[in-house]
Amino acid sequence: MALDPARLEAALAYRFRNPSLLRQALTHRSYGIPHNERLEFLGDSILNASVARLLFDAFPERSEGELSRLRASLVKKETLAELAQSLQLSDHLFLGEGEARSGGYQRPSILADTLEAIFAAVCLDADFVAASRTVERLIAPKIAALDPETHGKDSKTKLQEWLQARRLGLPQYRILSQQGEAHDQHFVVECRVAELDLATQGAGASRRAAEQDAATRALAELPTTKKANKP
Amino acid sequence: MALDPARLEAALAYRFRNPSLLRQALTHRSYGIPHNERLEFLGDSILNASVARLLFDAFPERSEGELSRLRASLVKKETLAELAQSLQLSDHLFLGEGEARSGGYQRPSILADTLEAIFAAVCLDADFVAASRTVERLIAPKIAALDPETHGKDSKTKLQEWLQARRLGLPQYRILSQQGEAHDQHFVVECRVAELDLATQGAGASRRAAEQDAATRALAELPTTKKANKP
Repeated sequence: MALDPARLEAALAYRFRNPSLLRQALTHRSYGIPHNERLEFLGDSILNASVARLLFDAFPERSEGELSRLRASLVKKETLAELAQSLQLSDHLFLGEGEARSGGYQRPSILADTLEAIFAAVCLDADFVAASRTVERLIAPKIAALDPETHGKDSKTKLQEWLQARRLGLPQYRILSQQGEAHDQHFVVECRVAELDLATQGAGASRRAAEQDAATRALAELPTTKKANKP
Repeated sequence: MALDPARLEAALAYRFRNPSLLRQALTHRSYGIPHNERLEFLGDSILNASVARLLFDAFPERSEGELSRLRASLVKKETLAELAQSLQLSDHLFLGEGEARSGGYQRPSILADTLEAIFAAVCLDADFVAASRTVERLIAPKIAALDPETHGKDSKTKLQEWLQARRLGLPQYRILSQQGEAHDQHFVVECRVAELDLATQGAGASRRAAEQDAATRALAELPTTKKANKP
């Protein structure tokens, strides 16, 4: 925890004039004031605008709906947490004791929020352009790897589109079992594609999650196509 | 329709190097291609980031939750449509015939979307800073007039906070009548504050809307305070 910030600055390719801004960005509210929540508010919007511009330029033929979907997949918690891990952000966080003991250093939401706060800190230390460049450096490789046809679509949507393109009937989902109390449920759902004689089972903490899991497994068993199954 | 764009540029205090960008921003999809939907995607994020920064600076003591609430009230369709009216944007729109005949020139969603597209056009014509300055010129007076205590809060929230601050019981809402088919319903709801012997009625197309209306009327009848009743 709280290693030399120069290592993080090197990973970000940005050197702070005012190091207290970086320090604040790295400070979770459990650690005390000043913490990074206001920075996160600002950083979230900088991230969204920067990624919007990158996608706007990268995919000139794509509609605004497709651009929105692509952006959502890039700025979601899981993606940001992964980028934060690539910066070894965990080594630099300031967390309160309880948060630290309960695994806060690896918690995706803390990592994602901190990364957003860092974008804001760069913006305040320099300007929007510098912050946007920091975003771009991290996220450009992800954009270069995007396949706009499938990226960001959930499995149920992908499965439906695959079937519709082949004029096949829609998949049927039904709950096979549902267990546990309201706050801790477990669903098992079947996804059946009658015309393909295909049936898969998925599990999850909600009906929706179990359906997505079943659809993911169905995609994996579709004949011939690799494409529909690509993450 | 489609007056001299120089008038609009004067109102925006921005002169386009590439006038076709402004023309595209002013073109609704009903008119043809290139239309403004992709620009709207980009402009929406520029607006959000610009307003986030303005609020971040204007209200250094406010939490990220309060800043979010303030921003939502500033970037919502109604506020943007009002700003668009102040620019006389209706005079410059390119709409398809059907849209034009059905009142499109005054439609709040079209005005709001077009304004967002204009922010993107400025960003592409110059840079983010120029676009952000255009946002600021329009929205700074609204920010200066904000009362962060009450602005953007709905009436039910304001009423609840007023009562809680005085250690009074929460208001009770109940449906007095509900009429019409699913797609065209009309609700009448009562809002009762027992300890104040206060009861008001509100109406709306949903239960929620009717409750808000009843709460707004209750706020207007609260003793002494002007503040809780401020829009």
